[in-house]
Amino acid sequence: MKQPYLPGILGGLGPMSTFYFCELLTKHTLASCDADHLDLLVSSRASTPDRTAFILGKSKADPLPAMIEEARRLADAGASLIVIPCNTAHFFYDGLQKASSVPILNIISETVRYLKHRGIGCFGLLATEGTVASGAYHRLCEPKGIRCIVPSAEDQAELTSLIYDSVKQNRKPDLAGFRRISQSLLNQGCECLVLGCTELSLLRREGLTQSLYVDSLEVLAYRTLTLCQKPTVDFPADFSCMSEDPL
Amino acid sequence: MKQPYLPGILGGLGPMSTFYFCELLTKHTLASCDADHLDLLVSSRASTPDRTAFILGKSKADPLPAMIEEARRLADAGASLIVIPCNTAHFFYDGLQKASSVPILNIISETVRYLKHRGIGCFGLLATEGTVASGAYHRLCEPKGIRCIVPSAEDQAELTSLIYDSVKQNRKPDLAGFRRISQSLLNQGCECLVLGCTELSLLRREGLTQSLYVDSLEVLAYRTLTLCQKPTVDFPADFSCMSEDPL
Repeated sequence: MKQPYLPGILGGLGPMSTFYFCELLTKHTLASCDADHLDLLVSSRASTPDRTAFILGKSKADPLPAMIEEARRLADAGASLIVIPCNTAHFFYDGLQKASSVPILNIISETVRYLKHRGIGCFGLLATEGTVASGAYHRLCEPKGIRCIVPSAEDQAELTSLIYDSVKQNRKPDLAGFRRISQSLLNQGCECLVLGCTELSLLRREGLTQSLYVDSLEVLAYRTLTLCQKPTVDFPADFSCMSEDPL
Repeated sequence: MKQPYLPGILGGLGPMSTFYFCELLTKHTLASCDADHLDLLVSSRASTPDRTAFILGKSKADPLPAMIEEARRLADAGASLIVIPCNTAHFFYDGLQKASSVPILNIISETVRYLKHRGIGCFGLLATEGTVASGAYHRLCEPKGIRCIVPSAEDQAELTSLIYDSVKQNRKPDLAGFRRISQSLLNQGCECLVLGCTELSLLRREGLTQSLYVDSLEVLAYRTLTLCQKPTVDFPADFSCMSEDPL
């Protein structure tokens, strides 16, 4: 294996976006045969306690121990870089990184770094209540002078239902509602909208405009591939601004 | 983890069908939240030497050592059942099972068992040259009185190109050619066609008729989920005939 890193995907949070992420890694690699693709490991622990429920205090089941166990399982199996295709789980990033012997890519800091490169001054955050409540995006954006606007309480409830009752249950999502929430954020001066929940990244398949929606999962896929020195294909052209960023 | 098995997916053969298989496992699980899904591990070793090239004597790079290494990596990480979403790789099944401490599901025997349950007397095999040359399907079908017809040399060459030059390279496949090869097998008396290459399973997305094409990857997904005691959804109704089969 000539890759500089063997990525270990800490997944199952949720399962469908985990495998969609793996599909993105594959689809975006410039390859003419199997062997041109990335070697990687995945632990998809779907049974990990719900992140948002714990963050909001609705459940006492802490997902961190399960996440630590899986990060260690991946590292013990040879992974040298942990990648978590889930924004909400990054609430536990510091605790997880402390317990992990290998570096962990951070989907939120990578996405914010991309927004900064792109010169975005204000964006709308489409994410779980857990991610919104954790303030993870806000904390990273403020020092960079980037404003992060979140949906109204009512719109957020609708978004939560879209994530939990539609996407996570393999049901056809109500895209009209999603587009209305997006438009309302744009009306407030947002220059773009961040898909800050990897369940929402799955809506890409339904045909969301790429220039308007910044997909945190695509940013993570780009960073994973470039850190592993794989030539990429079909990413937004301006992703290349991140290519020299260190881990 | 209350599952009777923790599946370890020995993947990368190729990468896209590995993740499509994981997607099938997820899509076909009756689930109302993440935790209802299967916990699983994946090792996607895309750099494994090409199976067909070795089987046909076109390459001296033996893929078996890499496959043994990955099966052990998965077992060491806790996997208690190895699943290989690739037909061609089953040429190495016996050697791999001998070297593995945990049982390995066999996509070819599972598919043939399903054909027998369904009362199929004659089917067409759509697979790689490696799988055809290995005679793996023929060997399992003959004792069961099932006839396996393969495409003509010319049609097989077209199928090989479809697998290697289109699907494995993320290029839009020529479905017209594929349908013509299928029709030619049906004209020879085949009652159904087996997608005996998991790259061809990806063509399902292009809208192949389910009743006509038996997808070995779907059979494998069904067996994986039922062995792990997960309630399934949206599989062909007659898959249930396999549900009592032992491992």
